[in-house]
Amino acid sequence: MTRQAAVSQDDVRRHNLGRLLRLLHVRGATSRARLTALTGLNRSTVGALTTELVEAGLVRESTPPGRGRAGRPSIVVEPESERTFTLAIDLGVEHVIAARIGLGGVVYDRREIRHPQSENDVDKTVGSVHALLQSMLASAPKNSTCVGVGVGIAGVVGVDDNVVRFAPNLRWVDVPLGSMLSERLDGRLPVVVGNDGDVGALAEHVRGAAEGMSDVIYLSGEVGVGGGIIIGGQPLLGAGGYAGEIGHMSVNPINGRLCRCGRRGCWETEIGEEAVLLAAGTSGGTDLADVLAAHAAGDPNVIDGMKHVGQWLGVGVANLVNVFNPEMIVFGGATREIFAATEASTRRALRSALTAPRDQVRLETAALGADSTVIGAGELAFAPLLENPMTALGGGRARLNA
Amino acid sequence: MTRQAAVSQDDVRRHNLGRLLRLLHVRGATSRARLTALTGLNRSTVGALTTELVEAGLVRESTPPGRGRAGRPSIVVEPESERTFTLAIDLGVEHVIAARIGLGGVVYDRREIRHPQSENDVDKTVGSVHALLQSMLASAPKNSTCVGVGVGIAGVVGVDDNVVRFAPNLRWVDVPLGSMLSERLDGRLPVVVGNDGDVGALAEHVRGAAEGMSDVIYLSGEVGVGGGIIIGGQPLLGAGGYAGEIGHMSVNPINGRLCRCGRRGCWETEIGEEAVLLAAGTSGGTDLADVLAAHAAGDPNVIDGMKHVGQWLGVGVANLVNVFNPEMIVFGGATREIFAATEASTRRALRSALTAPRDQVRLETAALGADSTVIGAGELAFAPLLENPMTALGGGRARLNA
Repeated sequence: MTRQAAVSQDDVRRHNLGRLLRLLHVRGATSRARLTALTGLNRSTVGALTTELVEAGLVRESTPPGRGRAGRPSIVVEPESERTFTLAIDLGVEHVIAARIGLGGVVYDRREIRHPQSENDVDKTVGSVHALLQSMLASAPKNSTCVGVGVGIAGVVGVDDNVVRFAPNLRWVDVPLGSMLSERLDGRLPVVVGNDGDVGALAEHVRGAAEGMSDVIYLSGEVGVGGGIIIGGQPLLGAGGYAGEIGHMSVNPINGRLCRCGRRGCWETEIGEEAVLLAAGTSGGTDLADVLAAHAAGDPNVIDGMKHVGQWLGVGVANLVNVFNPEMIVFGGATREIFAATEASTRRALRSALTAPRDQVRLETAALGADSTVIGAGELAFAPLLENPMTALGGGRARLNA
Repeated sequence: MTRQAAVSQDDVRRHNLGRLLRLLHVRGATSRARLTALTGLNRSTVGALTTELVEAGLVRESTPPGRGRAGRPSIVVEPESERTFTLAIDLGVEHVIAARIGLGGVVYDRREIRHPQSENDVDKTVGSVHALLQSMLASAPKNSTCVGVGVGIAGVVGVDDNVVRFAPNLRWVDVPLGSMLSERLDGRLPVVVGNDGDVGALAEHVRGAAEGMSDVIYLSGEVGVGGGIIIGGQPLLGAGGYAGEIGHMSVNPINGRLCRCGRRGCWETEIGEEAVLLAAGTSGGTDLADVLAAHAAGDPNVIDGMKHVGQWLGVGVANLVNVFNPEMIVFGGATREIFAATEASTRRALRSALTAPRDQVRLETAALGADSTVIGAGELAFAPLLENPMTALGGGRARLNA
């Protein structure tokens, strides 16, 4: 019910530039003819807009060789993936994955560090993330441009302030991660921080298992279990950006174990890494990889234990199906391998969901594998450029390697 | 990514007619000057549009008496509540509430029938609802117009087909309630059927406790517990319109009681009417009203029992807070009285939710009291008129009393 602002021709042009760039970012190389059909804009407008994007160094055009048919082949437009990039970080409890991601979602420089959970001191972590960023910037091509840094983290993050409110498995409370990283980078690059589940959902929705779907729930997992929810094609944020903490839905509040968040019987206490280790027993080994190997090798105790985990996975999935009636549930992070190892018992437990929504849901593992979070963090950092290409280039963009 | 359709001046006019009528329906009497400010349209456009709505018999205009100030007072526009109405039905397991609801949400003719749960034979129920509708039509004013019939029911309803897929507490499966009622009315009136929680949420969002909020969860309850969810100001439908079955989120899958849906430990088995009767024990009496009276009278067994129910109410509310980060949770139907009687223990259990979303949520009882569902059913039936006033009047509208 707000007053409508007048829409200028300039606003329309800006909006259409963003639409075109987003299409190219999602689809990769696309002919001008196809862009015309997809946007409903006329040919000359598409030509003028792509020329503007070429001049800004964001896309390039080429004419494919003739294919022996009459008429000129349509010019093909594609993102300048090597020239325009984001730096993306998946900041987990026991790992950091970093990547330089080119426009169009191309992963160029992927690095992974594993470390024990005990080494999650805030300053130390921020220091090593900063070192990774500096090193990746240094190895980016000459004349390329970094448009921003995106971080996905296993914690509750404020929607606009990039503050990590609560990351129980990192034991962080109210850490202003965005501004800490930004300061270390001398303010040269915009930094945006998101929940790992939210950014993983974004990645799988833009270019993964749930591409283009309307209603999707993505499960992320490492030590804990998180989630990201897409409703009507848009991320579910909630009043303050904290929505999606599906790992902290209590499913066993009387007899369950105490969760690091302070509640009893949270879903993550039944299906998270610790629960898997407990269920597998002594023969399962000391980490998830061990348990999965023992499971694959046919250890009967581990197989029984994983059936139990699968039942609990199915209980929570059935809850989500009854509450959200989603088209798809995507298992990402560690839940990807846990689901793969427990699929039969998970699906059996899902039978208890209401028939109508159960018949409509598909269960899938993340198409981007272990990289949903890091790719989603990159998408988060690309968002301002795709929203408004010219303003993003004029303002926050740092030509670090120019 | 669909092709943009050209927007004609006629489309714009239709859209603006709908916006104005919706504003008047929600706000009641409003001056043209205020309508101009609220819509951002210019004065002459607002004047032309309201004139069109006056001619269609949907609104009327009047000039308030001068208040001793300079200049002409602005003409006041208000909905023709007595001339344009919907018939609304809240079809519960143990009750039917019916109302004639005028444009603007004015309830004129409210009727309530109570019956035992055993008398929910489909044909008998459809017959008595039809008789109610006929009787209310007969008593509507001459020259008034019914724009449609809306029904809210405690069951899972298909989003476009008005079929009740599953109503466990009514024991209905795949009942084409919309077409059955429509046939009995000889197709004279459009009939739309919705889930009681969804329509209750709609009513509380349009004109109740959660007016104008963005993210809201509404709990409905009678024998079972249902819900309706508003995300970003829009109802959460899910892939097939089945979303919002929060009563069938299992919170006690190991030790809980079997639910009528077939699952164990659904939230409604811990906080629904049966759970309240069990928790209150023999001194609680035989229905919810008895228990609440005994609670109010200070019966210690009943007070203990209700504390237990409040703990479970809080467990589920905390789950919803962690998953949705809503601005408000509204307790409607029977959960209104249950929450009122257990508020302290419910709020205590809510303390276990994550701090960030917990700090943002407000818990409120339904402002429309027992009538959220019936008023929401009326809103459902008003929707096509508010979307496109002239088409709705030309097409489906029946001038039954003309």
